[in-house]
Amino acid sequence: MTIHKGIRTGGRSARVQQSIHDAVKDLLASHERSDVTVPMIAQKAGVTPSTIYRRWGDLATLLADVALERFEPDEKLADTGSFHGDVLAYAEQYLDEMGSSLGRSMLRDVTATDDNQCARRCAEMITTRLQVLAERATARNEPYPPIDRVVDIIFAPMVYRILFSEKNPDTDYVRDLVDRCMAENSAG
Amino acid sequence: MTIHKGIRTGGRSARVQQSIHDAVKDLLASHERSDVTVPMIAQKAGVTPSTIYRRWGDLATLLADVALERFEPDEKLADTGSFHGDVLAYAEQYLDEMGSSLGRSMLRDVTATDDNQCARRCAEMITTRLQVLAERATARNEPYPPIDRVVDIIFAPMVYRILFSEKNPDTDYVRDLVDRCMAENSAG
Repeated sequence: MTIHKGIRTGGRSARVQQSIHDAVKDLLASHERSDVTVPMIAQKAGVTPSTIYRRWGDLATLLADVALERFEPDEKLADTGSFHGDVLAYAEQYLDEMGSSLGRSMLRDVTATDDNQCARRCAEMITTRLQVLAERATARNEPYPPIDRVVDIIFAPMVYRILFSEKNPDTDYVRDLVDRCMAENSAG
Repeated sequence: MTIHKGIRTGGRSARVQQSIHDAVKDLLASHERSDVTVPMIAQKAGVTPSTIYRRWGDLATLLADVALERFEPDEKLADTGSFHGDVLAYAEQYLDEMGSSLGRSMLRDVTATDDNQCARRCAEMITTRLQVLAERATARNEPYPPIDRVVDIIFAPMVYRILFSEKNPDTDYVRDLVDRCMAENSAG
């Protein structure tokens, strides 16, 4: 299973994209986000601003694309032997990543774009990984809750609290959500 | 009970704030959001850019402040005679408002700011109103779920889907969340 990439590239095009992504990361490391502009990125990447506008449309979409790339899952998900354990491990990992300042600014960047393609890619990161856990559960003949319910009960509240609360949720909070999700499933 | 306002003002200061808010609304009505700048707003409002920076810090915070003002609740919440009915009426109203393109861009603006004061005001809009419904339930000797659980079960999934999904949740979805929230309460 591959993660859907919003912007497909290959060859020279991929190298240009990589140099633009690298330029964005360098600039964000040394500047306030609100001070970074398309002409600055273009100059650093050695391309014209129109190359950037043609490919991404606007700065917000480029920032979101770069942010998403950092969080594309590359490592394996822990196999704990049960859906409950697997979801808990993934939810804790997600909280670690998205509760960091880099994660929070990624969530902000992807919701800030005008079309919501980047936001959907961000949501798909979760559902794609949950699908992997669901396939494992199926192979174990283990019942599991509908993916949409797992998102609503566990991931939506985590994301909501990361974006809107004074402080991040903690591990106890995540454990409680996972327990509730599994309890609803065994009751239903 | 008053809604916490992030930026307190009075007299001349209030008039300046109002003219700046009005300038932002006018400019957003006629320009792409990404084309609106602090100097443009300052010129239209008849103030210096430094007045804006001094009061709001940056453009994102000003946009979020204007966006929040549009959604400060001013009307009464429907009293349906039960907590279940009241929460359902409020949740449907919230979906109507925040699922609109104006609502979605408000949610984006408040999460886009660097400090999360605006995001907290946005979350407080929900908890403050739920508190009003809880006080009514108390006066009726009616049990009700903890406010945090109402947020996690009903409002977090709505906001998550408004921000990250291809299409908005519909009324059936909201009814189902409210039913689940009340079922958990009567089971617990």
